[in-house]
Amino acid sequence: MNVNLMHGAGGEVMGELLKTLTAFKNNNAGGLGLESLDDGAVIPVNGTNIVLTTDSHVVRPIFFPGGDIGRISVCGTINDLAVMGARPIALTSAMIIEEGFEISGLARIVASMDQALEEAGAAIVTGDTKVVERGSLDGIIINTAGIGIADRPVRDSGLREGDQIIVSGTLGDHGISILAYREGFDLGDQLRSDVAPVWGMVDLALRAGEIHAMKDPTRGGFAAAINEMARKSGVSILLDEEQVPIRQSVRSAGELMGIDPLQVANEGKVVMGVPAADAEAVLAAIRSHPLGRDASIIGEVVTGSDVIMRTSIGGERFIEPPLGDPVPRVC
Amino acid sequence: MNVNLMHGAGGEVMGELLKTLTAFKNNNAGGLGLESLDDGAVIPVNGTNIVLTTDSHVVRPIFFPGGDIGRISVCGTINDLAVMGARPIALTSAMIIEEGFEISGLARIVASMDQALEEAGAAIVTGDTKVVERGSLDGIIINTAGIGIADRPVRDSGLREGDQIIVSGTLGDHGISILAYREGFDLGDQLRSDVAPVWGMVDLALRAGEIHAMKDPTRGGFAAAINEMARKSGVSILLDEEQVPIRQSVRSAGELMGIDPLQVANEGKVVMGVPAADAEAVLAAIRSHPLGRDASIIGEVVTGSDVIMRTSIGGERFIEPPLGDPVPRVC
Repeated sequence: MNVNLMHGAGGEVMGELLKTLTAFKNNNAGGLGLESLDDGAVIPVNGTNIVLTTDSHVVRPIFFPGGDIGRISVCGTINDLAVMGARPIALTSAMIIEEGFEISGLARIVASMDQALEEAGAAIVTGDTKVVERGSLDGIIINTAGIGIADRPVRDSGLREGDQIIVSGTLGDHGISILAYREGFDLGDQLRSDVAPVWGMVDLALRAGEIHAMKDPTRGGFAAAINEMARKSGVSILLDEEQVPIRQSVRSAGELMGIDPLQVANEGKVVMGVPAADAEAVLAAIRSHPLGRDASIIGEVVTGSDVIMRTSIGGERFIEPPLGDPVPRVC
Repeated sequence: MNVNLMHGAGGEVMGELLKTLTAFKNNNAGGLGLESLDDGAVIPVNGTNIVLTTDSHVVRPIFFPGGDIGRISVCGTINDLAVMGARPIALTSAMIIEEGFEISGLARIVASMDQALEEAGAAIVTGDTKVVERGSLDGIIINTAGIGIADRPVRDSGLREGDQIIVSGTLGDHGISILAYREGFDLGDQLRSDVAPVWGMVDLALRAGEIHAMKDPTRGGFAAAINEMARKSGVSILLDEEQVPIRQSVRSAGELMGIDPLQVANEGKVVMGVPAADAEAVLAAIRSHPLGRDASIIGEVVTGSDVIMRTSIGGERFIEPPLGDPVPRVC
């Protein structure tokens, strides 16, 4: 059997490929390892919880409204650390560059990475560079890995009955804007990627109350993330469509392209489950941060094994994880 | 200006590109950061020295005599940690796979990575997978990053006058064997990559005596590594050609292809500078390990700023860092 694009889309089909790629016997260093398939690993070192994570970025175009491959590569790793409850400390940057790439473009990418590091209070401390022959790669690929410190690591599987589900802002901005830009739609400033480091916002939330589970809805979007959280936690989630924040411009562009904003990547958002008693305090903390102004309580955790949306017209529908991502090369 | 293949070859030309790629203001997390351009970074965390490193692997062919891209991707990171004096703890694995790649090949690569992890006592604890469209990548690229713990971090810039230079075994095996294999030379089992995790051997050396500086001579080979160590340490190195271990098969194949074995990558070797008083003890420790049987004291550190080889016929020649690597896609 051969790998196909659906295998990399972060949806259900990817599970097959992951079975092969996670068949390591040496998969754990004493804490939370590869077997958890969480956003990062936890490694206890002399009483400190080190969180380790990695992401490769193949996004096209390299420069897009609201960001570029540099910003996304730093934010991707910062955000994976953040949703594990870890303060980002140090990142690596490994670039593979196609012969012929303009050095001025690299300088622009590096400046963009530096800006995102500044926003997150982290640093690129080591790196690697490979140059490959023309035609063997499409421009540039950037991998970042990173470590952070978590006083109390947060997993994506810790949802409990009665938890309130909070999203930190509007959904679908990144994926829909990337695709619209590729298709040549000009919607001005209304369609921009949300790519941003969420640690500052998550830090406020962690201080405001207990967080049982957290995830950043990147590839496969909110639909993939919420289903994974529900499945791993062994619970159902009941969502209220009226409360799910989606920009009108994103909704319209999604309808035009036949793409569901809930199934495409976000790069500056967080989904979490919070005990009902803490929900309002956590929501207020998130809203007090510039990235969290549109945060909303969108549902609750109940017994069962489905994700169900109560629609605005009074019906109910299942939110299924996407089989594959409608937007390849989105991150 | 555009990037060209010489920029990625680990030689002198690469310095230009590195200026652009290391222009981060946020480049240090309190210990040894990107500014050091060492094999890894050191991050002090609650009194523990965490070493962090990364490497992307683009080697072709994917399977070669003595190893494959999986083994090299694990060993590359293990060895970067080891030469920083760090016991490897946990690695990440980020794969970018071209549509159409056979899943059976992936399974073979994963098994090979697992074997190398087993040898080094480390684990892959987290990962990432991207699939890209056919034609946009040549098969597979693997990035690994990793963390280790160093009681006393070792840098590549700590050489002092009077230090003895030790290499842990024969030089040029990896680069020459990869190139010979590509050229279709059949030299049977005599030309094989040396790719192996060196931590076990380095651990013995660290326990046997003081190590002032250490590096693994990968891209650009021994010539690049020894020049970098000399330059960063502000010293000269006087080498004795008679003592430099090179396999006869490697020497012959190198002559046939016009390639200097000192200028191509090694993937299971270490170069170090050791105070004269400790040199014999450290050498004995290295030789007691299966990977270190051919270890040799090959020279000494003196005042100056050159690397000079006393040849076997009584002359002297400069060992210059290669401008570029004669073997692209070697690691």
